[in-house]
Amino acid sequence: MKKIYKAHILYTKEQSRFEVLENGYVAVDADGLVTGVASDLASLDCQDAEVIDFGDCLLIPAMNDLHVHAPQYRNQGIAMDLELLPWLQNYTFPEEMRYASLDYAGRMYRRFVRDLWRFGTMRACVFATIHTESTRLLMQLFQESGMGALVGKVAMNRNCPEGLSESVEDSIQGYESLISWQRNLTPPSSLLPPRVRPIVTPRFIPSCSPEMLRACGQLAAKYQLPVQSHLSENKDEIALVKSLEPDSTCYGDAYDRYGLFGQTPTVMAHCVWTDGEELELMKRRGVMVAHCPTSNFNVASGMAPVRRFLDEGLPVGLGSDISGGHDLNIFRMMVYAIQVSKMHYQQNHERPFLSLSEAFWIATKSGGSFFGRVGSFEPGYEFDALVIDDRDLNHDNYTLLERLERYIYLGDDRQIMHRFCRGKEI
Amino acid sequence: MKKIYKAHILYTKEQSRFEVLENGYVAVDADGLVTGVASDLASLDCQDAEVIDFGDCLLIPAMNDLHVHAPQYRNQGIAMDLELLPWLQNYTFPEEMRYASLDYAGRMYRRFVRDLWRFGTMRACVFATIHTESTRLLMQLFQESGMGALVGKVAMNRNCPEGLSESVEDSIQGYESLISWQRNLTPPSSLLPPRVRPIVTPRFIPSCSPEMLRACGQLAAKYQLPVQSHLSENKDEIALVKSLEPDSTCYGDAYDRYGLFGQTPTVMAHCVWTDGEELELMKRRGVMVAHCPTSNFNVASGMAPVRRFLDEGLPVGLGSDISGGHDLNIFRMMVYAIQVSKMHYQQNHERPFLSLSEAFWIATKSGGSFFGRVGSFEPGYEFDALVIDDRDLNHDNYTLLERLERYIYLGDDRQIMHRFCRGKEI
Repeated sequence: MKKIYKAHILYTKEQSRFEVLENGYVAVDADGLVTGVASDLASLDCQDAEVIDFGDCLLIPAMNDLHVHAPQYRNQGIAMDLELLPWLQNYTFPEEMRYASLDYAGRMYRRFVRDLWRFGTMRACVFATIHTESTRLLMQLFQESGMGALVGKVAMNRNCPEGLSESVEDSIQGYESLISWQRNLTPPSSLLPPRVRPIVTPRFIPSCSPEMLRACGQLAAKYQLPVQSHLSENKDEIALVKSLEPDSTCYGDAYDRYGLFGQTPTVMAHCVWTDGEELELMKRRGVMVAHCPTSNFNVASGMAPVRRFLDEGLPVGLGSDISGGHDLNIFRMMVYAIQVSKMHYQQNHERPFLSLSEAFWIATKSGGSFFGRVGSFEPGYEFDALVIDDRDLNHDNYTLLERLERYIYLGDDRQIMHRFCRGKEI
Repeated sequence: MKKIYKAHILYTKEQSRFEVLENGYVAVDADGLVTGVASDLASLDCQDAEVIDFGDCLLIPAMNDLHVHAPQYRNQGIAMDLELLPWLQNYTFPEEMRYASLDYAGRMYRRFVRDLWRFGTMRACVFATIHTESTRLLMQLFQESGMGALVGKVAMNRNCPEGLSESVEDSIQGYESLISWQRNLTPPSSLLPPRVRPIVTPRFIPSCSPEMLRACGQLAAKYQLPVQSHLSENKDEIALVKSLEPDSTCYGDAYDRYGLFGQTPTVMAHCVWTDGEELELMKRRGVMVAHCPTSNFNVASGMAPVRRFLDEGLPVGLGSDISGGHDLNIFRMMVYAIQVSKMHYQQNHERPFLSLSEAFWIATKSGGSFFGRVGSFEPGYEFDALVIDDRDLNHDNYTLLERLERYIYLGDDRQIMHRFCRGKEI
């Protein structure tokens, strides 16, 4: 049975401009796919469908978070004064060890999934920990929530405390148990990709021995799983990778040699210092950038050249990167991404800063593409959507685009009235 | 009659560290001044005082906004894609013209004052417009609210649309009427400075003829009024000022020649490119920097060297700079100020980035000093305070400092339970 939603519809088919339908309609079929979007009901050709009227609200695609560490949720917004190394040793690693406990994992992961929901993020690429059972629990929580997620059991076996190191065999065995758990979930008849899936997640080159990296690449190829990791976040890290993988021509090439750089769909967080050969390799391989501007500020990494990535045609999405980032709200990441691009513009007027439509497109259609046909209201797209009641922000005669801009800059979870993932209200 | 407030008390006497009193007490006299702060009730020596217990809440000094344009409140969070010039021509100036109408001013200014209150800002340095009557209305709204404000009728008579230009005579006459209005308000017996006062506000050098600047300087001297304006926000502006005031040795010197640079207490917004002689002059004159990091990002001005200002001993406060800035929340400005300092640190490790206590000190005691003894809980300070109920952010065993850090990074107006200005709940 089709449903039709009526509201002021705004989305980005192309990065350069918004589609704006004042009092528009979007039709969604029983599978949760958009079948049409129009300014008049008649042209949608579905007279018998139920019409749900959201009145003066805005209807926009839901948010996608391309990089977030679920087990660092407790550490969100603390220890921001520390440098990377003491922060990892004293906060990140001890916290991740606590996820050996399913009880603890359950308590924290429930809160994490609820808060993603709160801020309107319907799809996320998530780092979990090395612990297979609590990673399975996180997948299950996503499955039950109705939201979409690629969940990564973290692979790591060097340069980390003993409690967070796992042998290659145990790691791969853990992955395989998650893969078979997930396969048993999904009815094989579905035409859509599974909503919740494992993603191969070597933490980053310094945490993984060559054997671990090789095994990860083989796993991704064997099961056709996507891959996520960290890339070129800061200069010390890049030098360290070079010393660990002396034959590699760049940090990205170090992943590439193990089949972890676009051989299957790949997203790399940060890419603050990606340039030259690495950038070319990402283009060739279609590797997506998870741009994490708040994290890059907080960890003093630098400002990623996000405009350049767009100009070069690299796929880009936004990541909250909790707890390097402090904010789960992807609308805030749009603001920060624009601000980062403005600082590049201030230093060199050659490339313009990101427009609002570009930032929105990155957060929705571009980032969403990592999850399938997600992030737009074009026919065939999964209906991932938010209904925004911005009455309290809309105190004068603002245009629809100004209302959206004000929501992005000033709004928060209070204005999100409804959330949909794959056509289902969550 | 004294009152005693009990809660977890956090404030910054010095920039380098927090004072933390778990279950502490602060005593406030009938004038609204702090008479003591201690971990035990007995040492406060006021057995007969009423004790108000805020339980597990945090009690912190209220926020001070050192730079905000009240009549740009309608434009908050829109037109962020525009460059400075079209933004001024198409958004800022047309909006300011609407404040010729007292009706419009009343509607917008009420909302503005309410929202400052919402976010816990109890004192503000405000730009109004050239319009004397609506500026008086804004002063009256602050007076009635119980909050503190320095309100600036804007002086401008060149490089602006006709509707926003005022002759020197009319401008000075308008100021004098605001001054006498305010003098009639305040009981002359009070030992404290008036809570709401005019502040001399030449928009900036390019908007004011030499005669206007001279008259402003004379006005400040005659009535011993503070001064606010804009300084060294972007490089084109600095070049323009140099061409308008060719004899000046720097932008700051152009103000100084007219008695507008520390001859009376002075705050200058932005100072992104302040260096060398200008910095030395500010030091000598004790001119305060209103650091507006979100605005400096949004308008692509650059990143002010806020750590350097601290190292040089310049007084610094934070400004929201609506609507160049998009956020009224001064807690967010702390986060941005730290992030800006981290980008300087990333580029040159010579100076460390701002610590949390430094950012907090800038927002409270340092910025508050522009309004009197404001921004700390030391005896003799006016009791400007916020009571924060962070239960919803405090889901694990966090220390008091971690709770404050989480509130600064993640919190919003929902957690502010009570607001005090000069001892009175607002």
